[in-house]
Amino acid sequence: MIITSKNNPFIKETATLKEKKGRKQTGLFLVEGVKMVRECRKSGFSMEKLIVSESFYKSEAGAEFIAEDVVCVSDDVFRYLTDEKTPQGILCRVKYPINELSAPKASCLLLDGVADPGNLGTIIRTANGAGYKEIYLTDDCADAYSPKTVRASMSGIFFTKIYRATREEILSVLQDTPIVVADMGGENVFSFQAPEKFALVIGNEANGVSAEVRKSATHTVKIPMESTQESLNAGVSAGILMYFLQKERFLTSK
Amino acid sequence: MIITSKNNPFIKETATLKEKKGRKQTGLFLVEGVKMVRECRKSGFSMEKLIVSESFYKSEAGAEFIAEDVVCVSDDVFRYLTDEKTPQGILCRVKYPINELSAPKASCLLLDGVADPGNLGTIIRTANGAGYKEIYLTDDCADAYSPKTVRASMSGIFFTKIYRATREEILSVLQDTPIVVADMGGENVFSFQAPEKFALVIGNEANGVSAEVRKSATHTVKIPMESTQESLNAGVSAGILMYFLQKERFLTSK
Repeated sequence: MIITSKNNPFIKETATLKEKKGRKQTGLFLVEGVKMVRECRKSGFSMEKLIVSESFYKSEAGAEFIAEDVVCVSDDVFRYLTDEKTPQGILCRVKYPINELSAPKASCLLLDGVADPGNLGTIIRTANGAGYKEIYLTDDCADAYSPKTVRASMSGIFFTKIYRATREEILSVLQDTPIVVADMGGENVFSFQAPEKFALVIGNEANGVSAEVRKSATHTVKIPMESTQESLNAGVSAGILMYFLQKERFLTSK
Repeated sequence: MIITSKNNPFIKETATLKEKKGRKQTGLFLVEGVKMVRECRKSGFSMEKLIVSESFYKSEAGAEFIAEDVVCVSDDVFRYLTDEKTPQGILCRVKYPINELSAPKASCLLLDGVADPGNLGTIIRTANGAGYKEIYLTDDCADAYSPKTVRASMSGIFFTKIYRATREEILSVLQDTPIVVADMGGENVFSFQAPEKFALVIGNEANGVSAEVRKSATHTVKIPMESTQESLNAGVSAGILMYFLQKERFLTSK
């Protein structure tokens, strides 16, 4: 059976997952595209329902998925659900994990008001690549499970542990962890010797790190820059710092 | 006098600068916002005409600019010209420089088909910060002077030298420069010793570095990564590599 109506209750509910409110009500988010759905499956995240377009279902690429319990929808209905400009025709409703706030096991990230969904996704992607597997988001950060952030994370969202809480709660579980704040007034990260285990703080794109988190900082570092450039993009800064602060670990990486 | 009609020839021409065709015909591009206009002025780029909205003209922020030969337009006309979601009310028509292709004076960037305007701007921003002042774009890269790229470059566009040419032409001026290609199969950049002067190549977001440029590579480097992450964002990779390949230089930076 192919669902052809946008008024179908299942379709209507799925469409709400594009917005924060719908995700909150259902505890579900959307994962889109063949590659992302594959990665999601590998990760052990709970895939609640797979949805494919009629064209995708009949295509060669679809063969990999037809054995599963899929919902097939008309191409028109799929276009209504997708967040992509050029959709592949496959998306999945996925349960998002509730991670109970706890102290980090290794060096981690604290994102202090990172507001842009694309930046957030890019940072999660790099964090997964660089092995910062625990990511603490203050509650004014962009939503980690929006379609844009999930897409920009390029599957990083499946392999990192995302915590979301107030600054106070996060600082409380980090009380025994050195806090390294990225700030233009800090020490040159190239000559800085990082503690063995730390939380790296990346602040809001326009306003930087909050006063509350800044007060808890044990170190501040900066990326040196030519005078004509005031700052770097938040995602780029985060990437450079994540790798630099643990350069010894990467020296022997493959 | 305040221009209130979108049919005014000057307004019509200005609107064409949002598109590549219009920029090519006039040799002009648009720079928007107080900060960017200030940086543009500092840079010595030739500002052909400053345009402000009526509201901006009458505002406190406008005072800095009213002594100049500005064109004042109605808020409605300004909204027609702007590329911003929340425009400040100031933009400038700027002549773009024609940089004659020549060999780099120092370590430089070769962008090989970077297609996303935002990525391109972010890379130019980082390049300016990290001191890679000469940037070679293959002719299939995004346009460096589109509003999106200019904005993402955060004034980096004014302080770097941008060359645009065919791969063949670029490789010809780089024939005496070691070419370092970013590629997943390369040497670990953390243990790699870069030549004193080199061209760092960043490839297309989906397809990587072209075969033509790859053939000219003298070195290949990679950023080590956890197995669950296949790649990093092009802007992030470029940033990490630009800084890492010259880490000795940055050790003593302020």
